[in-house]
Amino acid sequence: MIIVFKPKTSEEDVKKVSSQIEAKGLTTHIVVGEDVTICGIIGDTTIVDPKQIEVSPVVERVMHVSEPYKLANRAFHPDDSIIDVSGVKVGGDHLALIAGPCSVESKEQVIEIAKAAKAAGANMLRGGAFKPRTSPYAFQGMGTEGLDILVAAKKETGLPIVSELMSADYIEEFNEKVDLVQIGARNMQNFDLLKEVGKRCTKPVLLKRGLSSTYEEWIMSAEYIMASGNPNVILCERGVRTFESYTRNTLDLQAIPVIKKLTHLPIIIDPSHAGGKWWLVEPMAKAAVAAGCDGLMIEVHNNPECALCDGPQSLKPKKYTELIEQIREIGHIVGKEV
Amino acid sequence: MIIVFKPKTSEEDVKKVSSQIEAKGLTTHIVVGEDVTICGIIGDTTIVDPKQIEVSPVVERVMHVSEPYKLANRAFHPDDSIIDVSGVKVGGDHLALIAGPCSVESKEQVIEIAKAAKAAGANMLRGGAFKPRTSPYAFQGMGTEGLDILVAAKKETGLPIVSELMSADYIEEFNEKVDLVQIGARNMQNFDLLKEVGKRCTKPVLLKRGLSSTYEEWIMSAEYIMASGNPNVILCERGVRTFESYTRNTLDLQAIPVIKKLTHLPIIIDPSHAGGKWWLVEPMAKAAVAAGCDGLMIEVHNNPECALCDGPQSLKPKKYTELIEQIREIGHIVGKEV
Amino acid sequence: MIIVFKPKTSEEDVKKVSSQIEAKGLTTHIVVGEDVTICGIIGDTTIVDPKQIEVSPVVERVMHVSEPYKLANRAFHPDDSIIDVSGVKVGGDHLALIAGPCSVESKEQVIEIAKAAKAAGANMLRGGAFKPRTSPYAFQGMGTEGLDILVAAKKETGLPIVSELMSADYIEEFNEKVDLVQIGARNMQNFDLLKEVGKRCTKPVLLKRGLSSTYEEWIMSAEYIMASGNPNVILCERGVRTFESYTRNTLDLQAIPVIKKLTHLPIIIDPSHAGGKWWLVEPMAKAAVAAGCDGLMIEVHNNPECALCDGPQSLKPKKYTELIEQIREIGHIVGKEV
Amino acid sequence: MIIVFKPKTSEEDVKKVSSQIEAKGLTTHIVVGEDVTICGIIGDTTIVDPKQIEVSPVVERVMHVSEPYKLANRAFHPDDSIIDVSGVKVGGDHLALIAGPCSVESKEQVIEIAKAAKAAGANMLRGGAFKPRTSPYAFQGMGTEGLDILVAAKKETGLPIVSELMSADYIEEFNEKVDLVQIGARNMQNFDLLKEVGKRCTKPVLLKRGLSSTYEEWIMSAEYIMASGNPNVILCERGVRTFESYTRNTLDLQAIPVIKKLTHLPIIIDPSHAGGKWWLVEPMAKAAVAAGCDGLMIEVHNNPECALCDGPQSLKPKKYTELIEQIREIGHIVGKEV
Repeated sequence: MIIVFKPKTSEEDVKKVSSQIEAKGLTTHIVVGEDVTICGIIGDTTIVDPKQIEVSPVVERVMHVSEPYKLANRAFHPDDSIIDVSGVKVGGDHLALIAGPCSVESKEQVIEIAKAAKAAGANMLRGGAFKPRTSPYAFQGMGTEGLDILVAAKKETGLPIVSELMSADYIEEFNEKVDLVQIGARNMQNFDLLKEVGKRCTKPVLLKRGLSSTYEEWIMSAEYIMASGNPNVILCERGVRTFESYTRNTLDLQAIPVIKKLTHLPIIIDPSHAGGKWWLVEPMAKAAVAAGCDGLMIEVHNNPECALCDGPQSLKPKKYTELIEQIREIGHIVGKEV
Repeated sequence: MIIVFKPKTSEEDVKKVSSQIEAKGLTTHIVVGEDVTICGIIGDTTIVDPKQIEVSPVVERVMHVSEPYKLANRAFHPDDSIIDVSGVKVGGDHLALIAGPCSVESKEQVIEIAKAAKAAGANMLRGGAFKPRTSPYAFQGMGTEGLDILVAAKKETGLPIVSELMSADYIEEFNEKVDLVQIGARNMQNFDLLKEVGKRCTKPVLLKRGLSSTYEEWIMSAEYIMASGNPNVILCERGVRTFESYTRNTLDLQAIPVIKKLTHLPIIIDPSHAGGKWWLVEPMAKAAVAAGCDGLMIEVHNNPECALCDGPQSLKPKKYTELIEQIREIGHIVGKEV
Repeated sequence: MIIVFKPKTSEEDVKKVSSQIEAKGLTTHIVVGEDVTICGIIGDTTIVDPKQIEVSPVVERVMHVSEPYKLANRAFHPDDSIIDVSGVKVGGDHLALIAGPCSVESKEQVIEIAKAAKAAGANMLRGGAFKPRTSPYAFQGMGTEGLDILVAAKKETGLPIVSELMSADYIEEFNEKVDLVQIGARNMQNFDLLKEVGKRCTKPVLLKRGLSSTYEEWIMSAEYIMASGNPNVILCERGVRTFESYTRNTLDLQAIPVIKKLTHLPIIIDPSHAGGKWWLVEPMAKAAVAAGCDGLMIEVHNNPECALCDGPQSLKPKKYTELIEQIREIGHIVGKEV
Repeated sequence: MIIVFKPKTSEEDVKKVSSQIEAKGLTTHIVVGEDVTICGIIGDTTIVDPKQIEVSPVVERVMHVSEPYKLANRAFHPDDSIIDVSGVKVGGDHLALIAGPCSVESKEQVIEIAKAAKAAGANMLRGGAFKPRTSPYAFQGMGTEGLDILVAAKKETGLPIVSELMSADYIEEFNEKVDLVQIGARNMQNFDLLKEVGKRCTKPVLLKRGLSSTYEEWIMSAEYIMASGNPNVILCERGVRTFESYTRNTLDLQAIPVIKKLTHLPIIIDPSHAGGKWWLVEPMAKAAVAAGCDGLMIEVHNNPECALCDGPQSLKPKKYTELIEQIREIGHIVGKEV
């Protein structure tokens, strides 16, 4: 941690600040420049709150030189984490192919889609039972009944299930029925939920990036879950909010190499929610794999025109099948096997 | 609602779409243009999901012509709502002046600040007992003990209390101890919390704008609370996320006239969190009042240099007192009385 | 074009607006809904300025239903445009591979890099002679001398040259020396420059997307050049500005399918400027090709540690060579040949 | 300037970097921390390009500790600059009130508006003769003829003239006819234009903030003009681009205290372009003055419904007159006189 003092700060004032820090058992090192004086802090700086230093009238600003996350940090865990989702490996050279409808609508629908997705090469089934909707008047999902339909589809196809958890009240039910527990973008900084999921959730967690969350904030939310007891976190980029309104969100594929550099966690891409248009899914899915992602979460629907939610971004099974064939070839080039 | 068809859509295809809509009991009206054909829908269009129409291969896009919110909509409630917070009126020509520390740290601290704030003219006391922090390793607030300190400060000063609720598990405790229940920016789209607050919270709710939430999404979150049973919602602008990193957030004061045009709900401004620097608070507070806001939420701390959280953005009581004097004068010009 | 009237607008007021429009020779069609009345306009609506209608106190808003661009519009030119850059084809199934240093620094440097780039498979040479720099105190480029060095490198290698034009005063010099004239992101809405380039520039133009320009604004800038007389425009995505500051910009690869849907112009990707870090270039270049782009512009430097500008984002020739090998394979899968 | 090395960088590698810097005549100071080593650089660091250091494989990043601008920097010029625009002072306790139509449309129009604006209290007249328009098919302004109309209006009313310059070819004409030369948002980083304006423009310059320019970039553009020879720069905030699309732009009033802290230059606010709606102008103008701005640029039109450009954001003279009365009172409270 580095403290930058305001121009013309007196030696005495610099001393006063540095001795406060030394009082906490840290070592300081003062560098007097021509314009400004800086103070380097040596030791475990996580015990220092930079805001408390910044409030001093002689301090210009305080700069971090190391990341605020530990458990998720690649620096302390150089190898890729490989997360086991009921037998399906995510991370390393494995490619997770998660497919399914945005919302669970009926048993027939889900089973039909699950079979088609599996036939195409998918190795996990997604489906929303609890739905975060902007409007209180929109369809809010089938809830528990929806989860049971997913369980039935798993029994039929063997595909592990991914579904979104919106309230800590349902963690135990998800532990029982779901294989990968999704935390949605709008709950990425619902810290109470993150803590409870860390403590009580026995299944791996898929943590979506918030609509305007920085990489660091996103990793810190993973750190919340990990620090609370659940080390099995997979990150999911699903587009960020920008000035561009033609697409629903701007898909940030640079997240793939960045997350892999900063952390050891797997990262998968959701091209369906990012663009909000089905014809963007195919090129973005191929791009994501070429960039080295660990998986794809894609909405597949047998009848998008009648979907209760997000029909315009769903692929039909036939298109999904063709896509997976190209994905397989691109994955092969970049060292990922399906 | 208006459907825009793709260029060269056949008359027959247009008919097919319009008859689907008429099957729901709505009336349609087709306008054949030179380049494009459009279809106006007449009737209660809230029963139509635009996404289900957009998925049709012949539809270019679907456009709303009326707002998706009703209870919060100014069109249906032309008069300003005035919310009573344990005797303090918010809205109309009343100006709420909420002051206090970011975090509750000790009884002495809170009572000292509360007295100073009251003497300066504040009419409500804020203080965080449950704190949403980006890092799991940062101070997370005093919790229930913090609420009890606020209650003691209320006993001492008579000031109603504002504090943030992060989990539905504490609603009943907040009902008992707190006068205005804050939902933080990071929980603005925690829909499960919004619903529970609508159902079970007996006190008015202060709903902060999400970091990158549009006006419409923000109002829809108020609509969630109102539709679930609690009509007493006050909105709070606290800065939005942009590319500019010198300030913590960009304070959007245009929100004041916009929210007042679209809704009948009061809107207050939090200049402390927006900029993250104490010297931005004074000019922005004056600007907010000049623009017609219904209140200010400002961090005041007796000893910012030792604050456990957000010291750099806190005003000392003396500065706050001077500010309120100018606020009073500006309020007088724009028709708000303190 | 559709006019949406305010709720409760009288029939008479609607008539007044619609007759103003009919006076311009257009046909109108009024649809009276339950809440709102709308008016569809039929005919050549480019002669109507929506802002002039919106200013009426009874008009809520005016909505476009067709794009404001014509020459660049895919709807009127269904086939891909293939642009010939001194013999190198860009668009269709051709992949432009543009490589070279950010700035021209010396003849030896440029020729060495040009040879290495050509050996790796590049088919065009880039190099900045006139440099747009945020600081007036930074190196501003070698100017005309820099262009002459590029010409020498072209003589040596046969690679066509790409370089940035910053002022209309140099158009004739660029016509003589440069094969593809780049308009930088910061000049994307320098409309006077666009018009002059349209009128006087005899070479194809590479138009970079502005830092926060929408797709529509970007295409409208291409339309400026085309409408002024130069139809040979290639678009270049180079990252947009967002809240994320870890990367220099956020690369928007959704731009590839979107631009291809809306226009018939080729689109190439510049992964070097987008991320600002060399280790992001390789994954993003592969992603861009997988998503169907028409070319890549990549900074290659023989000695990035001594580059006068943007060293951290440059690849060494060896890394570039390895990258092009993978690009070739991915291009093959998606139908692009190098 | 501070160099942060990568974790585990060897002493020898650190030495190598620091001696390169010392070779330039600067002093370095190395601080070895537990996790990371940093190196402070002492002396005139403007001769060091941080990017050239960052490219080293052992360097994590390079941090500025002082601002990259000098002539505009408040640190070196503690007093407010007061700019004289043909007798009207801008800065200090003076409030510039610039009013007029977006575009010059006819002599009658401009003179009528100029008289009304002057009667209301305006002390400068604005009017666009050269118009930057997104579409090549939109009205591009009257050009020289428009400037001559403004000159006629000045003769009639005595109000100094503000108008936008889009090309260096017209600098001499502007020197002759215009009193304050505006550089528009889209040309804020048209560095060639900035340099020419610095060299050849004899009148003060009004520099609008780019649509997504940071404070630092904006100040650096002012620095370009100042370093090229013209010290008389006034900054103008006109809204920045965000995710919110209900308003045209998000007006950033925090810019006022920030710019005043970082620079000695005056800052004025353009609330008309920011929101794009006339009913936002009044509250934002009052807010801007309450926040301490040095002036307001407001669009006033005698007949907004027939304006050739930006009618929806123009005030009628009567509304403007009422606004100026309130502005006068608020200005009085915050120490600005009209």
